[in-house]
Amino acid sequence: MRSIARPAWRIASTLRTQSRAMTNQANGRPKVLTLQSINQAVLDVQYAVRGELALKADQYVHALEDPAKAKGLPFDKVVTANIGNPQQKGLNQRPITYWRQVISLLENPALMEEHLEVIKSIYPNDVIQRAKGLYKEIGSIGAYTHSKGVLAIRERVAKFIETRDGYPADPEHIFLTAGASNGVSQILGLSLQPGDGCMIPIPQYPLYTATLSYIHGRPIPYYLQEPEQWSMNTKVLTEAVAKAKEEGVRVKALVVINPGNPTGACLSREAMEQVVKLCYDENILLLADEVYQRNIFDPEHRPFISFKEVVRSMPAEIANTVELVSFHSISKGVSGECGRRGGYFELVNLSEDVVDQIYKMASVTLCPPVSGQVGVDLLVNPPKPGEESYDQWLAETTLTHDNLASRSSYMCERFNALKGMSCQPAEGAMYLFPKIDIPPKAVEEAKRIGKPADVMYSLQLLDATGICAVAGSGFGQEAGTYHLRVTALCPGVEDYVGKIEQFHNEFMAKWA
Amino acid sequence: MRSIARPAWRIASTLRTQSRAMTNQANGRPKVLTLQSINQAVLDVQYAVRGELALKADQYVHALEDPAKAKGLPFDKVVTANIGNPQQKGLNQRPITYWRQVISLLENPALMEEHLEVIKSIYPNDVIQRAKGLYKEIGSIGAYTHSKGVLAIRERVAKFIETRDGYPADPEHIFLTAGASNGVSQILGLSLQPGDGCMIPIPQYPLYTATLSYIHGRPIPYYLQEPEQWSMNTKVLTEAVAKAKEEGVRVKALVVINPGNPTGACLSREAMEQVVKLCYDENILLLADEVYQRNIFDPEHRPFISFKEVVRSMPAEIANTVELVSFHSISKGVSGECGRRGGYFELVNLSEDVVDQIYKMASVTLCPPVSGQVGVDLLVNPPKPGEESYDQWLAETTLTHDNLASRSSYMCERFNALKGMSCQPAEGAMYLFPKIDIPPKAVEEAKRIGKPADVMYSLQLLDATGICAVAGSGFGQEAGTYHLRVTALCPGVEDYVGKIEQFHNEFMAKWA
Repeated sequence: MRSIARPAWRIASTLRTQSRAMTNQANGRPKVLTLQSINQAVLDVQYAVRGELALKADQYVHALEDPAKAKGLPFDKVVTANIGNPQQKGLNQRPITYWRQVISLLENPALMEEHLEVIKSIYPNDVIQRAKGLYKEIGSIGAYTHSKGVLAIRERVAKFIETRDGYPADPEHIFLTAGASNGVSQILGLSLQPGDGCMIPIPQYPLYTATLSYIHGRPIPYYLQEPEQWSMNTKVLTEAVAKAKEEGVRVKALVVINPGNPTGACLSREAMEQVVKLCYDENILLLADEVYQRNIFDPEHRPFISFKEVVRSMPAEIANTVELVSFHSISKGVSGECGRRGGYFELVNLSEDVVDQIYKMASVTLCPPVSGQVGVDLLVNPPKPGEESYDQWLAETTLTHDNLASRSSYMCERFNALKGMSCQPAEGAMYLFPKIDIPPKAVEEAKRIGKPADVMYSLQLLDATGICAVAGSGFGQEAGTYHLRVTALCPGVEDYVGKIEQFHNEFMAKWA
Repeated sequence: MRSIARPAWRIASTLRTQSRAMTNQANGRPKVLTLQSINQAVLDVQYAVRGELALKADQYVHALEDPAKAKGLPFDKVVTANIGNPQQKGLNQRPITYWRQVISLLENPALMEEHLEVIKSIYPNDVIQRAKGLYKEIGSIGAYTHSKGVLAIRERVAKFIETRDGYPADPEHIFLTAGASNGVSQILGLSLQPGDGCMIPIPQYPLYTATLSYIHGRPIPYYLQEPEQWSMNTKVLTEAVAKAKEEGVRVKALVVINPGNPTGACLSREAMEQVVKLCYDENILLLADEVYQRNIFDPEHRPFISFKEVVRSMPAEIANTVELVSFHSISKGVSGECGRRGGYFELVNLSEDVVDQIYKMASVTLCPPVSGQVGVDLLVNPPKPGEESYDQWLAETTLTHDNLASRSSYMCERFNALKGMSCQPAEGAMYLFPKIDIPPKAVEEAKRIGKPADVMYSLQLLDATGICAVAGSGFGQEAGTYHLRVTALCPGVEDYVGKIEQFHNEFMAKWA
């Protein structure tokens, strides 16, 4: 197996040698908490999406607010193409009107009680009815709910899954969460014993390596095939399992991100069946990160298929055996309600004893944010044709979807026209992950300054253009290759892709 | 040191012997996830506040909705005195109007844009101005914020702390969280290495023992003095540290809950200074759970004093040395916005390197719920005298506060009038923790059915009256003593205390 270039979960150890104010000024004795005394697993956690680049971008945003400082900068705005945060300031994805109207009523029920007549003059009737129904079920949005989330909402999630897949779902096996990342931490933290192996795709969303570092799990990378649009290759998977077993590692879980982050790849049914078969043969828990299921650019050619459906459609022995946890979120899709922190996971084929333990652990954190739970309800049960809000909901969500798809294909085309850059088209999700052929001299220079070459590239891109894009090394990539993750969320794409081109060409010329 | 009766973090191990659907029906082979294969630390986690009692209460709530089933029950409603959930259905604490008006505008900014004239007819002007200001700072409530939380809100938290304590606070050392419990998990998980000791009061809110179990920390109990209104005793603390050190345990942290949960005790400055001195002498991190700081019943006699203030007011060597993390929340106080999941912690005297690590870990979870962040802003910066909303805000919060105080003293008096029950008056928080002198025969019977005696008592109380109260064994207590935790949140206190009395007297007579 090829080694990962500068794996995200190992470079952190250099931190251990640093020391900043680690003794008390007053008396020179060591602090209680130092990098040597805290939980050592924390030091190994890496999370590039919000690392040095994001901090620097923040500083630029503040500098731009000060005319004196702004004058010295070669750009007049920061383009935050580094985080999948659709409703961020400066991006043009507006919240779905229907969502916000319903939630505003739940936030202040007086609007549908003593002020009902006033609200009727500005809100559609279906919004008011929906809010009244939810209010009756939930009560105050400021009260704790059941630790699994409001039952009525879990029932509607179950119905959504049944309609999507054609197989039954059990509300008692559905847990609402504070976003998918919270669900992933819960499940990984509960499932793995220290040293247990967890297969993760490379490149991957760094939540997985960060969480595994923290819980002393062992990441077992399996490489996605860049030349074949970042597809999964069963042979690669099987070899990764075999190698881990040879090394005495218990392979406990396998993570699939579908559609892929950062790759944008969407799996075929055949590929998914092979993954499920592998999990069956090797007795591995399957973790399906399906948060981008609504972000599919060409559903005729490559529709989203859930792992739940694939598992259930296989021969009974497999269908009733393979243990699966599937994650979904309100943060992505066409809602983009990241700040609300809402999502759910569904447990399939898990032992009831283990479900009870998951419930117990959920209860220690009391309950997911209720506003996020309401978001899940609106996600799984949107307005229906014929309802008053339907047309506006459809127009808004279609616009968001089309914007993403068109920006994605436009950027991909422009990137591929550049010398020293190549980009696989995305079939879904919100990102492109172009490959940068960084010249050897630039790689040398990066080594000299102690950074991965693509981190140097992305920091210089930010300095020159104000554009934030995360270096591929934050996601993992094959040794000797370099990438960038760029979101397809930013408006003004012609303009800023032009700036990327200009920077890229100058960079390539400089280090040729 | 006395041993804890049936410590919450040890009884769980009996679970390991259970087995329910632990093999696949299809092929009889073991599941991937079983009680034997999952993270074994999970099995030791106990969280009685939402355990068997809460599940049973849920079943009664559902049964009461069905007339056929309701007929067979000896009560017509479930009184949820088990959880500090002020806005729960059936309780009469209404949300603060000002909060909900402001948040409804942030949820649907169209209300302060195209519908501004309509909203002006029903909302006070200061609400609209506040929402506009927050909207300008935050942007969409559905976007991710900075992982520490919105800077402008952290700046106002700093100002709140400065005004409260008279000492400066640094917004960069303030982290907004998804409630205090989330903050506590973050800090304990980062600070402790496996085996490190953490001193916790007994009785304690079981979040602490649950979190310590999960992270392999070692709880070092220190007993509160029931006869002296659950006060802290320095000698007890010092002995607990000495004993732990003798056993080779590194005592890393000390938790104080002030005002106390479940005890209701509020610490004097002298007691606090002794705690700080101990932390200084022994180089221990001080964790101050101060979520009930606004719930003080007799501020003349026993005001709330923050540990930040006490630390800073001590001689310079101590003031600039003792490492402190202080937690606050929007879930308690007079706001009671539990479901919103909002809170903050302040870091005092921590190394900047460690602050950076806390920030990195916060960034993996992206950001706290934005609606909870807004709640923190409203908590630390309420309407001021002269502003349009001030009078209503004052009336609502005063009512909530007075209700809590009067129910607490009323219940305490009635409990103390009962034979076989005694109750220390609460100086703050939301609970009473009466002692039950369970007769030896009942203790025998409890042993026979495999439950702590107070758990048996509380389950029978629920069966007989519909009243939920958590057994003291869920919080820890001296061996051979039994308690109940009852919230002071439920209306109709004359009625339900009467039912507790009747049940108690019958129970005592039955087992005399």
